Amino acid sequence: MRTNGDAELQDYVLTVARQALAASRALAGLTSRRRVDALEAVAAAIRADAARIESENAKDLAAARADGLSPAMIDRLGLDAPRIEKMARAVEAVAAQPDPVGRAIDGWMLPDGIRIEKRRVPLGVVAIIYESRPNVTSDAAALCLKSGNACVLRGGKEAMHSNLAVGQAMTRGLGDADMPPNAVQVINTPDRALVPLLLARDEAIDLVIPRGGESLIRAVVEQSRIPVIKHYTGNCHVYVDARCDADKAERIVVNAKLQRTGVCNAAETILFHRDVAASLIPRIGAKLREGGCEIRGCPETCRVLPEAKAATDQDYAEEFLGPTVAVKVVASIDEAIAHINQYGSRHTDAVVTEDMGAADAFVTGVDSGNVMINCSTRFSDGGVYGLGAEIGISTDKLHARGPMGAADLTTYKYVVTGSGHIRES
Amino acid sequence: MRTNGDAELQDYVLTVARQALAASRALAGLTSRRRVDALEAVAAAIRADAARIESENAKDLAAARADGLSPAMIDRLGLDAPRIEKMARAVEAVAAQPDPVGRAIDGWMLPDGIRIEKRRVPLGVVAIIYESRPNVTSDAAALCLKSGNACVLRGGKEAMHSNLAVGQAMTRGLGDADMPPNAVQVINTPDRALVPLLLARDEAIDLVIPRGGESLIRAVVEQSRIPVIKHYTGNCHVYVDARCDADKAERIVVNAKLQRTGVCNAAETILFHRDVAASLIPRIGAKLREGGCEIRGCPETCRVLPEAKAATDQDYAEEFLGPTVAVKVVASIDEAIAHINQYGSRHTDAVVTEDMGAADAFVTGVDSGNVMINCSTRFSDGGVYGLGAEIGISTDKLHARGPMGAADLTTYKYVVTGSGHIRES
Repeated sequence: MRTNGDAELQDYVLTVARQALAASRALAGLTSRRRVDALEAVAAAIRADAARIESENAKDLAAARADGLSPAMIDRLGLDAPRIEKMARAVEAVAAQPDPVGRAIDGWMLPDGIRIEKRRVPLGVVAIIYESRPNVTSDAAALCLKSGNACVLRGGKEAMHSNLAVGQAMTRGLGDADMPPNAVQVINTPDRALVPLLLARDEAIDLVIPRGGESLIRAVVEQSRIPVIKHYTGNCHVYVDARCDADKAERIVVNAKLQRTGVCNAAETILFHRDVAASLIPRIGAKLREGGCEIRGCPETCRVLPEAKAATDQDYAEEFLGPTVAVKVVASIDEAIAHINQYGSRHTDAVVTEDMGAADAFVTGVDSGNVMINCSTRFSDGGVYGLGAEIGISTDKLHARGPMGAADLTTYKYVVTGSGHIRES
Repeated sequence: MRTNGDAELQDYVLTVARQALAASRALAGLTSRRRVDALEAVAAAIRADAARIESENAKDLAAARADGLSPAMIDRLGLDAPRIEKMARAVEAVAAQPDPVGRAIDGWMLPDGIRIEKRRVPLGVVAIIYESRPNVTSDAAALCLKSGNACVLRGGKEAMHSNLAVGQAMTRGLGDADMPPNAVQVINTPDRALVPLLLARDEAIDLVIPRGGESLIRAVVEQSRIPVIKHYTGNCHVYVDARCDADKAERIVVNAKLQRTGVCNAAETILFHRDVAASLIPRIGAKLREGGCEIRGCPETCRVLPEAKAATDQDYAEEFLGPTVAVKVVASIDEAIAHINQYGSRHTDAVVTEDMGAADAFVTGVDSGNVMINCSTRFSDGGVYGLGAEIGISTDKLHARGPMGAADLTTYKYVVTGSGHIRES
């Protein structure tokens, strides 16, 4: 069903929101075992529907080719049997994670015997607005189900057929496990007018997570009356301190910049303390250039590394997402911290140092969700941290920061138990 | 200084925001001891300035009388020596609380030896927009300083002289303790055009907490690009279950409704299971009426309690904040839960029951920050819970729910320590 016209779209959004809220109430009362069974049924249904998902995906691919999408985007969009199997396995991996719901995160007794418990509970309804690959559809749904939330999934129009096919399989899986079928709803229209209507439904939706380019995220923040957790991609730094181990510095810088360049936890700017600039910039610069990396440096960098181009201020703000790096010499760790807090995106920043005082100052001073000491920025990842699947890496400070797993999709309630207690004053 | 004109106001807001950000960076590096010393110096300065604060307060009181404010509002606005002493003591009480900053809230090792720590850190800059009494100025500043945050305080225009006098004392106290003086800034203009300008400064301000009437909170949510934690006042319920202890039910209902009626954790609607309606509504209704309470009931209630007026649908949505109560008979606990989730404000709701299954169903089903079993809704309070002072009671689900203390004004960062580790895959 495609919706046409504002009233019809509004009706559709209201229905989706109301169904999600009702499903979330039903989910809140289910045991951990029921949710695990549901995830396993969803994985089985994705496997059983693999051929149909692939043929629906072929429609998206044909349209993408006709629209002249880049080969990289077409590759991201494409699903084949191994990728669909990977989606099913990711759902099973989420099922196998520890259950965050019901966990007592704190608890104490008041002097008169009242018992207070702070207990993890699902948020309720989570909306995810994304531009990414079709596997986000099943990953996000799995994390929401694991944490007892209903979800509304709004993918990009390029992947509409694929997302709906994955959604259909998931709905059937939910039915097989006798779960509320509206626990997962995939939006069925590419109409852009839907997004602001959805973002106005704060009576039903508890959280919005936009995943995609910065313009998408900014648009959601502008329009939303629902709390948003932002997952901006990363402008990550490595700061090479005066008292560093040169081998570690080389290894970490090269890994952070080049091990995989198109990802949010790759480094974009390397800062060198002036005391080691002359010795390390040429050495590490040579390694980076060997790896195919273009270097844009400050004047001091260009002096010791003549192959470097001059960096502009914009280069320091840039997330290259490719084999380009900005390099800057700083006079002190304080200058490094100030640079990172000015240009960074609060995602992940690393220091290479053998000096405990410098490490402490860096950890305290850098206002980012992940601060790495003597290891690569590339480790900043929910899978690596052991959170299981991640819904993304929050660059916000409220609610959840850094990699977000199922536990970050919960809230808590205070459960206060007395035996007839009343308040006297 | 009063600001005039849009450009001047914009300049003022930019300066305040920039100063707050700079102060927050300085605060992040200070030890717990330094922050405690600062709070003690602030308390001493408020004490030392008591006469001046009282004389500035007299100007606000004179204006309030000239403007014809209600006696209740004038009483809330007024400061005298005992009230100012109470403000100073509240600051000292916050100083004496455990420090939330630096606390390791989780930590583990990865298989290859990388160490991950989730460490509590200040949010950065907190803005509080309030309409309430002048003591909010010192309470909010104390909680922010305790948690290592800079704050921007925007009180109501009725209390402008009082708030600025308290702010001046606090700034002097901060100076005495050699703290960044812009750690606490009190906005010095009543111009309403300032608020949207402040709410646009998301590069500097991390969190906005609006305190006051629902229209203030809604306006802030509409205008803000900064995350908001809402502290709506409460439409709280007591549900008296079929299998309750009648004495506990009477005691709890009367206490929840009448012990103090003008507060957010007072009960506004009482729900009775049909099985106990005929026996308990007349008995508890009589007690409520003895306490001066007007009762608005559903048809079944009016049948067993002829003195009750007929309740309208609006009565169930109303926060009376006075000696009026809505009473409704429900056929089941599920109907009670559905009523609370429809009409309640997610603040605090109580069940009176001896049936463990009913208590569990109520705790799971009611979507509120505080769920009370066999005790009064009046216990929902940061002071009672032992959080020390509270910045309010969050009716949101994201970040912090229920009573918010200093720890709720922090976030965390992942501190990841290796010894030259790089990522291979």
